[in-house]
Amino acid sequence: MYIVILAGGSGTRFWPLSRGRNPKQLMSILGGKSMLQRTVERVLPLSPKRVLVVTNTLQAGETSRQLDQYRDAVHVDIIEEPVGRNTAPAIGLAARIIARHDPEGMMVVLPADHYITDEAEFHRTVKRGIASVLNGYLVTMGIIPTRPETGYGYIEVDADMRGEGPYPVQRFVEKPSLEKAMEFLDAGNFYWNSGMFMWRAGVILNRISEHMTGLASALDSLTFAGDIWELSDLNPQIKAMYHQLAAESIDYGIMEKADSVVVLPGSFGWSDVGSWSALPEVIEQDACGNVIINARDIVSLDSRGSIVYGGGKIVALIGVEDLVVVDSGDALMVCGKERAQEVKIIVQELEKRGLNEYL
Amino acid sequence: MYIVILAGGSGTRFWPLSRGRNPKQLMSILGGKSMLQRTVERVLPLSPKRVLVVTNTLQAGETSRQLDQYRDAVHVDIIEEPVGRNTAPAIGLAARIIARHDPEGMMVVLPADHYITDEAEFHRTVKRGIASVLNGYLVTMGIIPTRPETGYGYIEVDADMRGEGPYPVQRFVEKPSLEKAMEFLDAGNFYWNSGMFMWRAGVILNRISEHMTGLASALDSLTFAGDIWELSDLNPQIKAMYHQLAAESIDYGIMEKADSVVVLPGSFGWSDVGSWSALPEVIEQDACGNVIINARDIVSLDSRGSIVYGGGKIVALIGVEDLVVVDSGDALMVCGKERAQEVKIIVQELEKRGLNEYL
Repeated sequence: MYIVILAGGSGTRFWPLSRGRNPKQLMSILGGKSMLQRTVERVLPLSPKRVLVVTNTLQAGETSRQLDQYRDAVHVDIIEEPVGRNTAPAIGLAARIIARHDPEGMMVVLPADHYITDEAEFHRTVKRGIASVLNGYLVTMGIIPTRPETGYGYIEVDADMRGEGPYPVQRFVEKPSLEKAMEFLDAGNFYWNSGMFMWRAGVILNRISEHMTGLASALDSLTFAGDIWELSDLNPQIKAMYHQLAAESIDYGIMEKADSVVVLPGSFGWSDVGSWSALPEVIEQDACGNVIINARDIVSLDSRGSIVYGGGKIVALIGVEDLVVVDSGDALMVCGKERAQEVKIIVQELEKRGLNEYL
Repeated sequence: MYIVILAGGSGTRFWPLSRGRNPKQLMSILGGKSMLQRTVERVLPLSPKRVLVVTNTLQAGETSRQLDQYRDAVHVDIIEEPVGRNTAPAIGLAARIIARHDPEGMMVVLPADHYITDEAEFHRTVKRGIASVLNGYLVTMGIIPTRPETGYGYIEVDADMRGEGPYPVQRFVEKPSLEKAMEFLDAGNFYWNSGMFMWRAGVILNRISEHMTGLASALDSLTFAGDIWELSDLNPQIKAMYHQLAAESIDYGIMEKADSVVVLPGSFGWSDVGSWSALPEVIEQDACGNVIINARDIVSLDSRGSIVYGGGKIVALIGVEDLVVVDSGDALMVCGKERAQEVKIIVQELEKRGLNEYL
């Protein structure tokens, strides 16, 4: 088993804490280890042969530094994208590298910035998917929904399916309306599309050859110096080829088009922690539903449902509700909780004003 | 003319910016000069003989330091109270010191932490009060109300009064209900009780002898070393006498009881800046009614009516309304604007928890 970690995201949705050089996956938003480090630690019990981390040039140094501590436990390879091209090129590149050495090798593809509460259940789920992978299926992990979430895509399977799966995918569904999301939750045959996948390296490359011919020929053109896992020769080639590639997600490029796609249902306390307002999914709230992070102490008066990143300070709340408050040291954001997605508009505005030191 | 500045307040209502050693009057809440410095600069055009500043032992050093720059322009005396006893003892002490040298001397008593927009009109108002002072009246400045404020006491005069005043006081009215305050505003013969006074030193001492015999005998017992304005001999005596004194306001102790009290109406953009929520009275708001202080820059999205003290940071607001947000460096407060008075409850709670470095 090879673990492929997608770690190139810029994470503007956690501004002002996340920045170009300090994106969400490298941040210690929950205290302690970064999300990338947590992702690596989470897969070590699966005894992978190697961990391949696909990141970008800007973040490669810090990514490598954060992973140094795991190099005794597992081989870690850092693959640098010169520019983001969504998930299909990143996954294809990792598949090409693995297949060069081990075409039958199984890849487990995981985003670096997701959170999983129940790691043992996650391990059991991965193991439940192995038989399908060996049989040549493309396996996508589907999270058993716990609420009518409108921020995720869904995967539908036949309503008559029984057992633990994997089940054949009937269709992928875009982010639904609340009404639709409530129907999906009631129906019971819909899963959240998590962006976590399992397959053989050779199998996904074959599908790329079928459905993404441009990417396939670019990957074919890569030449390897020898039979060793030394990727430094590869980086100039990656740099040269990447700018020509079209940006495409693996979902749209392959999963929604290919046959033999199955969904592996899982329920392990998963969250993609997509914005500040998602933190209550992964951090314990106090009795008033407040989540207080990185505060010296908290004094709260009639205040409910807020998320505060306190910059190490004493935090005092008086009569406030459903806010996101973040003190990053050089920036102070106060945001209505239901508008946390709009942080990216602030980032755009700062860019327009040339305040690059805050990006 | 002698100016007496009451500068001993602790100003917990501007926590977390104000602290025991950095109370409101010594703070530069508006940027630039402190409120005490602004108060001194405001009276210099009145060419006072001396400025007497009554403060407390904890704040005396910083008070003196802030006033050093004015010692070429005017004689500044610092009087240290060992403990706060409200306004009557502070005013009585200053009157005793002035009367020792100049019993006919006129005192103008001003709190150190009030804000005045129109200084020229303030000077004209003071000059309009001089004749009444010379005639032996106790003059209290009454602000012509501009809104039905429920946070101030009011002073009523006869409804038939014409001209600019001063007018004889009919009665002092406690902080009213909103309904009452609207009646007062409509009636036109009510003024805000500003806590600013004018009188002869000998006259107020006589009234203290009539109405506050305990304070009067304590003041009488003070002995002066010579005929010079050297107060250092006085501080041990003040220290010894102060703990015996009862805390009493000059309003309750004298003004509400004495005869010959007149109100001098004024309209010079006055505010006592009694809490964070009062800042829009004295600082210009942006187009959305936000007051942003001490921010590196501000990016605001659908946000209205908030007051932000930004700790020198970039401030980003998204969909928030009527908040007070204060970053003091070691504390971060977020408060509903209409609840800004409750900051003192936070201060009490911090005290209870022994977090004295934040007090």
